[in-house]
Amino acid sequence: MKKLNVALIGCGFMGRTHSNAHRKVNNFFDLEYQPVLKIICDVNEDKAKAFAAKWGYESVETDWRKVMANKDIDLVDICLPNNMHMEVSMAAAQAGKIIICEKPLARDGKEGEKMVKAIEKAGVPNLISYNYRRIPAITLAKKLIDEGRLGKIFHYRSKFLQDWTISKDLPQGGDALWRLDVKVAGSGVTGDLLAHCIDTALWLNGSMEQVNAMTETFIKERKHNLTGKVEKVGIDDACAFLARFSNGSLATFESTRYARGHKALFTLEINGEHGSIFWDLHDAHRLQYFDHKDEGSLRGWRSIHVTDSDHPYMKNWWVPGLMIGYEHSFVHQLSDFLQGISSGKPTGPCFRDGLATQYVCDAVLKSAKTNKWEKVKKA
Amino acid sequence: MKKLNVALIGCGFMGRTHSNAHRKVNNFFDLEYQPVLKIICDVNEDKAKAFAAKWGYESVETDWRKVMANKDIDLVDICLPNNMHMEVSMAAAQAGKIIICEKPLARDGKEGEKMVKAIEKAGVPNLISYNYRRIPAITLAKKLIDEGRLGKIFHYRSKFLQDWTISKDLPQGGDALWRLDVKVAGSGVTGDLLAHCIDTALWLNGSMEQVNAMTETFIKERKHNLTGKVEKVGIDDACAFLARFSNGSLATFESTRYARGHKALFTLEINGEHGSIFWDLHDAHRLQYFDHKDEGSLRGWRSIHVTDSDHPYMKNWWVPGLMIGYEHSFVHQLSDFLQGISSGKPTGPCFRDGLATQYVCDAVLKSAKTNKWEKVKKA
Amino acid sequence: MKKLNVALIGCGFMGRTHSNAHRKVNNFFDLEYQPVLKIICDVNEDKAKAFAAKWGYESVETDWRKVMANKDIDLVDICLPNNMHMEVSMAAAQAGKIIICEKPLARDGKEGEKMVKAIEKAGVPNLISYNYRRIPAITLAKKLIDEGRLGKIFHYRSKFLQDWTISKDLPQGGDALWRLDVKVAGSGVTGDLLAHCIDTALWLNGSMEQVNAMTETFIKERKHNLTGKVEKVGIDDACAFLARFSNGSLATFESTRYARGHKALFTLEINGEHGSIFWDLHDAHRLQYFDHKDEGSLRGWRSIHVTDSDHPYMKNWWVPGLMIGYEHSFVHQLSDFLQGISSGKPTGPCFRDGLATQYVCDAVLKSAKTNKWEKVKKA
Amino acid sequence: MKKLNVALIGCGFMGRTHSNAHRKVNNFFDLEYQPVLKIICDVNEDKAKAFAAKWGYESVETDWRKVMANKDIDLVDICLPNNMHMEVSMAAAQAGKIIICEKPLARDGKEGEKMVKAIEKAGVPNLISYNYRRIPAITLAKKLIDEGRLGKIFHYRSKFLQDWTISKDLPQGGDALWRLDVKVAGSGVTGDLLAHCIDTALWLNGSMEQVNAMTETFIKERKHNLTGKVEKVGIDDACAFLARFSNGSLATFESTRYARGHKALFTLEINGEHGSIFWDLHDAHRLQYFDHKDEGSLRGWRSIHVTDSDHPYMKNWWVPGLMIGYEHSFVHQLSDFLQGISSGKPTGPCFRDGLATQYVCDAVLKSAKTNKWEKVKKA
Repeated sequence: MKKLNVALIGCGFMGRTHSNAHRKVNNFFDLEYQPVLKIICDVNEDKAKAFAAKWGYESVETDWRKVMANKDIDLVDICLPNNMHMEVSMAAAQAGKIIICEKPLARDGKEGEKMVKAIEKAGVPNLISYNYRRIPAITLAKKLIDEGRLGKIFHYRSKFLQDWTISKDLPQGGDALWRLDVKVAGSGVTGDLLAHCIDTALWLNGSMEQVNAMTETFIKERKHNLTGKVEKVGIDDACAFLARFSNGSLATFESTRYARGHKALFTLEINGEHGSIFWDLHDAHRLQYFDHKDEGSLRGWRSIHVTDSDHPYMKNWWVPGLMIGYEHSFVHQLSDFLQGISSGKPTGPCFRDGLATQYVCDAVLKSAKTNKWEKVKKA
Repeated sequence: MKKLNVALIGCGFMGRTHSNAHRKVNNFFDLEYQPVLKIICDVNEDKAKAFAAKWGYESVETDWRKVMANKDIDLVDICLPNNMHMEVSMAAAQAGKIIICEKPLARDGKEGEKMVKAIEKAGVPNLISYNYRRIPAITLAKKLIDEGRLGKIFHYRSKFLQDWTISKDLPQGGDALWRLDVKVAGSGVTGDLLAHCIDTALWLNGSMEQVNAMTETFIKERKHNLTGKVEKVGIDDACAFLARFSNGSLATFESTRYARGHKALFTLEINGEHGSIFWDLHDAHRLQYFDHKDEGSLRGWRSIHVTDSDHPYMKNWWVPGLMIGYEHSFVHQLSDFLQGISSGKPTGPCFRDGLATQYVCDAVLKSAKTNKWEKVKKA
Repeated sequence: MKKLNVALIGCGFMGRTHSNAHRKVNNFFDLEYQPVLKIICDVNEDKAKAFAAKWGYESVETDWRKVMANKDIDLVDICLPNNMHMEVSMAAAQAGKIIICEKPLARDGKEGEKMVKAIEKAGVPNLISYNYRRIPAITLAKKLIDEGRLGKIFHYRSKFLQDWTISKDLPQGGDALWRLDVKVAGSGVTGDLLAHCIDTALWLNGSMEQVNAMTETFIKERKHNLTGKVEKVGIDDACAFLARFSNGSLATFESTRYARGHKALFTLEINGEHGSIFWDLHDAHRLQYFDHKDEGSLRGWRSIHVTDSDHPYMKNWWVPGLMIGYEHSFVHQLSDFLQGISSGKPTGPCFRDGLATQYVCDAVLKSAKTNKWEKVKKA
Repeated sequence: MKKLNVALIGCGFMGRTHSNAHRKVNNFFDLEYQPVLKIICDVNEDKAKAFAAKWGYESVETDWRKVMANKDIDLVDICLPNNMHMEVSMAAAQAGKIIICEKPLARDGKEGEKMVKAIEKAGVPNLISYNYRRIPAITLAKKLIDEGRLGKIFHYRSKFLQDWTISKDLPQGGDALWRLDVKVAGSGVTGDLLAHCIDTALWLNGSMEQVNAMTETFIKERKHNLTGKVEKVGIDDACAFLARFSNGSLATFESTRYARGHKALFTLEINGEHGSIFWDLHDAHRLQYFDHKDEGSLRGWRSIHVTDSDHPYMKNWWVPGLMIGYEHSFVHQLSDFLQGISSGKPTGPCFRDGLATQYVCDAVLKSAKTNKWEKVKKA
């Protein structure tokens, strides 16, 4: 196996999911490349050291620019808040590194365009981490659609519901709460949660033509952790939009952090002429499938327990009936990405795919301001 | 018991559900009034005769105007296609009859306004048959909301999905297919299915301020059963809309007859500060309820099997665990209506409630044309 | 239509379900015969009068023997506690009446044998009311099995769980509580609940060879409503048994009234070589079906919403997606029974079928005492 | 962190789950000890080498006796077929190694007794790998029961259903199919699957008094992979038994590999005076909980998505709503075991706990032969 020296930047939640993937991918998949955890980089040195000890990184760095200058490093994995994605990824591109970047691509399309330009100019393999494509049930859904089993598509609906910001006492900004700080995050649920819904939708159902959205910020002011002052909340707490896809299908999308009782309820449903599928993240190992070609009186939604060895990725894990978890989607994504490097046929989603999602987010947020339908730019 | 002589007009599907309610209500509820099946009226005499034999109507009539002139008749029950609602109900009002009218109130708000004016002038008890309010699980949901258990409401979402018009070979117009004929129905899924979603929403969540909609007619032309020619389809096959309620909550609504695998999937979900509820018609006897006040690590959506004797209407039926069906909602509705006549405190939904729903439908259909947010008129 | 004059004996819960069936069957099914509610009979005259008023019985009787002597009566419907089944049904047979008897057939096989002998000698049409055979989902299951879709059967499992007798303060005996009084009921959950599981099992999976059971009476003494004294409880509160069917399949059966959280959870599952089915009464309109012949990676349990017009009995009710309830199984049973009278080809379950179930119950209760496997007598 | 040098014996399915746990436990849990993958041992050298490369074992061994003699090794992890457990674990005990052994403890109680004697004499920390105790939902169930929330227990039911041996063409013996070879496995579903049901039951519900079982071998002869001949099948394909626990509760247990449509459906349900719980492995992240103390009309089974930070083990993984998989139960088990070594308070299940389960299995298999109730020996 060829070693790929990895520098990972950012010790937060996503730093852990990515580290786990690097550390585990070769235990379960036969690959030409083997990631080696060389450098963990974080502005907070103590945090970085503790992280290195926990995950086995060989060294610690606090200045990400030094990572770029390090010739030993083959792959830079960016697990920073959104506002850092552009600068760091462009520097990595310039340094010729292979790049993995946590989603969303950027705070908006303008940033994203610069990034795509730089990355494509550098010609480095690049991945934007929309991990849900690699949940086996969703990968199986993609296969069904590509085989034409659903026929002409009439409807797409997707939502991502959470309930963790209902309390007025929750502050914004800093550490785990940067997602509430519009300067850092760029937007609220749109970039954080709907971006997942959108990436999956574009992958499964093709491009979107236009959108019509509404947003709401239920709690208008929150204490800011960095300033200590009560400040206006700039993010969208909730967002819903109507959409029309290029294939003629109609869609509804919705996300919120005010849906009491839902932790991370990402769902999607597609209705086609010959069949339908439904999936939700809370039972991520099941794909619901309705096949109209089944015999009339015996038709019903099938609950497919996507854990068989002939299901995507599953022969590499355990035995039928035994579930895998959330983090496995990152392992699958990395395995595919490394295989793409070997074969020279890159697997998405690449930065340009990330830009397509960014353009939908931009149109959504614009529509919420203009109160009318907005066209979606093509990436 | 006091007899209430009933004339029912229209021998279709709804004629059966209403006849069943009249015939059955006193077997299960203790009431002052007892409906008596006096006259069945339909333009098709053979159909009316067969219907009379099946349900025990005492006589048959083919001209609804004669029904109005009949002094023996106390209550007129209108189970006709939408385009007949205005004329017949206004004549019934003028004749001083108690009126039950199948939903929707009319083809549009303009018709509805005339009807409400006439009925209120006549001062007769009147009911518009939005039967789903009386599914025990929904009545229980109303109780929970009225008790403040959900707290401030953030989100409302509702849909009504069917799949019976996907085939291009399905004609429009005549008999059971008048729902596809815009002249008779007024609109497609908006008046037929979304009207149910909207009535329930207004009842549970209060009035709506504005809406933003899209509609689609997937099959543009269909053979017309009455003319024998291929004609343009004037109805909406699908409709989705965003809405803002007066209480500040955000909503999404959707209906279609192109959702493969769903027969009559009417769902509703409400997310409030303290709790949430979910219900769907395909498992109509269950109310899903999330109570945030439950102990932290033991919180979960409760699947309430709404069949106990302390659940709405259920002590009048069987024993805990034993389901009732769709038609029971009409029995409950009639029981409540008859009790309202006894007590002089009419129970809704009355014609004015029906008009409120009509105004939302009007705004939805207008928005789908203007491509912008439309205000909802107050009934 | 030919009138069938009905005398119904017993005004309890089952009196209501049977009356409803008689009153409603011709509204929904095209039949040669029409039941007419002639006489309601109950030892409690006030109760009988109130019942007659509610259901429209023409007259009231307090002595069931007079019913037998009444030449006008064509059909006797026995809704009495178990200890009365033998005497009343044998008198009805002798009087040449058509007989419907609520399940179980009797308190034990010895009584049942006498009944079957008398009824068969009299040659009258007879029905033992095991209504669950006529839940559309179960009728559909029977069809699947008869078509060989499950292949060789390996396993059968069924249970009936309730929780209404957990309180020590609940008395036994009298009115609604005769089911706790062994003298009246004959047994506890075995005759009351397992009898349903067994009848359905014999119908779906053929005869049983031997059983091995355990029973328990959790509350040993309860106040007796008739004597006012605390008396020993003679019934079985819970019963579980292993069984072997003649077709080589293995089975487990269980019933209890101490399963907190379950109201009337009657479930059954069958596993065959080619497929499996599952059903439960709490969602009685759904049949879960697994077809191993489905394409490998797309296999899953189908949730069949048994409400389409090509599902058993359903074209007589509403439209797809709209559920029916518990009481409809009695309407279906009556419709089939009346058709059997017309055609001269009686539909089961007849008294002899009821005896087969009784023999299994007897073997079960015997095994619980002998602590060994007991053979099941063939009816 | 203190290094614990691990030698793992056996490169099969379980070798992978245990290796993964050793390799991953310190990434997610703060522990005093850190397992180091020193030696992988398998009689098949090629297999061992490939395994070492995949998992990062430092060296390869083909003779397990040499492992015992190796002073560097602190912990021996036995992932061999059942017939090897006794000899290897006793040698490890004699060598003073910490011992982890995959379940079941042995082929029968006789072997188990010798093992427990040897291990306890040696006084080494020991673990028998009944991993399901550490599925967070089951650990939460244990907590609920210990807090008395279910009250007096009336019923326990558990099953483990698979469908992978239905084909007659499946051979027995050798590699992955040693589970079908009675000489190696000791028994069929009883030791393989019911052992899991039993261990969990003893943990949650206390000791068992007596059992009454039936077993079946549906396919009587299969080709043997080691001899190449068709040989009698000695294992039980299916087993069901009744049981009585010391706490007075009644139980049913069942396992089979002939339940078409079920891959690894391990379920358990407990009904107590105040509440009930239900769990199944196919949706392992959900605990169904019914609390009778909930307000009357709002009672329902709660579906607890056991992924919150206050749920057992879950704060060490991701964020609420994100599932973990099967293999995590082994990580939890190892974390607890290592903590037990640190604290000197060993966490179960130890070998003696494994013996308790073995005694139940013995009684079950004996009962299936004697056709009567058999007492369960106490470990």
